[in-house]
Amino acid sequence: MNDRFIRALRREPLDRTPVWFMRQAGRSLPRYHELKGGRDLLEVTRDAELAARITALPLDYFPLDAAVLFADISTIFVGAGLDVRIEKGVGPVLPHPYDTAERIRSLRPFDPRDTLDFVLETLQILRARLDVPVVGFVGAPFTLMTYLVESPRSKDRHGTKTFMWRERELWDELMSYWAEHLLEFAAAQVEAGAAGIQLFDSWAGALGPEDYREHVLPYSRRILAGLAERHVLSIHFATGNPALLPLLAEAGGDGIGLDWRIQIDEGWRIVGYDRAVQGNLDPVSLLAGREVAIARADEILRRVAGRPGHVFNVGHGLLPQTDPEVIGAVVEHVQSVDLNALRGGHE
Amino acid sequence: MNDRFIRALRREPLDRTPVWFMRQAGRSLPRYHELKGGRDLLEVTRDAELAARITALPLDYFPLDAAVLFADISTIFVGAGLDVRIEKGVGPVLPHPYDTAERIRSLRPFDPRDTLDFVLETLQILRARLDVPVVGFVGAPFTLMTYLVESPRSKDRHGTKTFMWRERELWDELMSYWAEHLLEFAAAQVEAGAAGIQLFDSWAGALGPEDYREHVLPYSRRILAGLAERHVLSIHFATGNPALLPLLAEAGGDGIGLDWRIQIDEGWRIVGYDRAVQGNLDPVSLLAGREVAIARADEILRRVAGRPGHVFNVGHGLLPQTDPEVIGAVVEHVQSVDLNALRGGHE
Repeated sequence: MNDRFIRALRREPLDRTPVWFMRQAGRSLPRYHELKGGRDLLEVTRDAELAARITALPLDYFPLDAAVLFADISTIFVGAGLDVRIEKGVGPVLPHPYDTAERIRSLRPFDPRDTLDFVLETLQILRARLDVPVVGFVGAPFTLMTYLVESPRSKDRHGTKTFMWRERELWDELMSYWAEHLLEFAAAQVEAGAAGIQLFDSWAGALGPEDYREHVLPYSRRILAGLAERHVLSIHFATGNPALLPLLAEAGGDGIGLDWRIQIDEGWRIVGYDRAVQGNLDPVSLLAGREVAIARADEILRRVAGRPGHVFNVGHGLLPQTDPEVIGAVVEHVQSVDLNALRGGHE
Repeated sequence: MNDRFIRALRREPLDRTPVWFMRQAGRSLPRYHELKGGRDLLEVTRDAELAARITALPLDYFPLDAAVLFADISTIFVGAGLDVRIEKGVGPVLPHPYDTAERIRSLRPFDPRDTLDFVLETLQILRARLDVPVVGFVGAPFTLMTYLVESPRSKDRHGTKTFMWRERELWDELMSYWAEHLLEFAAAQVEAGAAGIQLFDSWAGALGPEDYREHVLPYSRRILAGLAERHVLSIHFATGNPALLPLLAEAGGDGIGLDWRIQIDEGWRIVGYDRAVQGNLDPVSLLAGREVAIARADEILRRVAGRPGHVFNVGHGLLPQTDPEVIGAVVEHVQSVDLNALRGGHE
């Protein structure tokens, strides 16, 4: 078992940097399209064997240090019995917004171990099949709200924000409902074989720090603290606003995901050296050819300077048009760098 | 003449905070649609009298402390003789991208005083007609590049970024060309009556600090330093990445525009108290009703605490669906707050 990913999250010194990519199993791989056929993302997710094969697919292309569960942030809606569809170019769409007391109170408690058993089965298959850790994941409550409170959602999330500001009690009810069920779903993923959980708050960057602190942080913290109590390793990921980094760290996570809007050394200083960090490579750099991509990966390694606790990744998901050869070149390069040689005076 | 806006940019102590809004003359005002009729933005801009009436229109609704020239960031393309169109939901579109040496070298020097005389005429009309300052503006070179290098542009600006990383010489040629002509256009606007210039770098937030420093800052600085040499007041505005604030300040500007992704007091500390600051109100808060909008405006005033050099504004343009009554309530509230009472121990 290659456990470099796990050891990096624990900030143990390593021989080389572990690497995986958000959306590594997706549209950038030609065989993904073959496996998926005409099915949509949620159909694939319901087929445990197929989801396991797609999760494992990038390992056929590159010697990555982790796989990431093939599923969608909106999978939890399926678990709650909501009629969610994935619309091309729009994302998850619900039959109506959940923005009234009546609709919010129509949501029923559920046990993800029953209603999302197909996801857990995927993880069980992978545990037996792979020799690298599998990252499980859930969407963060705020990001789910952007799909739920306005559907389809607006570019500036104005429906979500105005609801958040005006309906404080309903906001608390809805965020608490999801926090509780997301924690259970995450814990169940780990029981089924996930090595750790990434909490994806892909839209938190639309908020300023005060809004994040008041309306989002307490709920994400419930999930991350709940995982910590159960000794589950976690990564807290958001994108779009470096000014949130101190609050993301406050909310929790053994590792904090950084996008490319801040330099990795500066971002790490801000979240604190008692956390691991992951990410930072602009996914667009992989579209600029092998030379540019490797130079930018190198710049990240140079800034990290061998400090224990770094997981190499992109700052947001791989873009569909990424050339697998460039991905492979970056993986090879990052894995070729000897951290003992790079390491300076840290710890 | 109400000169509070100008005096705020000079960081003089004032009785109350000056207020204007980006896109205040736009789609949120019913009479805008009447005046504009079926014409597109660039057609309106070419009609100096109509553009002057639309620029002045919000002053019929609210006692604002500044007007802002009604024009588009892409107006400079018209000055360069490019065949630009505004496409609904897309923005400015050119007949082809300017991403090869041949096409870039087909761009000819031009004198904005000739080719954009209609804009200057608009400002001359307004100088005679208004008793508040008129803010002139130009797009920043990087933001123009996102329209020019890829057209139509992608959501993640991948065409612009890959060109920037791969074609360093062509990038320098093109950015220098625009910096030079934008400076001349800005200076001509001030000669024609604009009280100051806002440099709009609406897409700079897609970049991290290193990319901004290397590929963008030198060109924006040429414009801002050129304006400073000519004793023209300037505001440097970008949105989407608070980690760029120290670099925006380094590039120049008497005032720095802040979006809502950082608290105004923290943003001001970062850009330095030798600058004025403008902005910070999330434009979405104006969609949440009078009570929410006023509470959030108040929070900004409380954080500024009467420090001289604050221009009240939104962090990005007003949204088309904003209710004019809410805009009016915020203007009235901000203007009712006595800064002498708020002022603490600053300067």
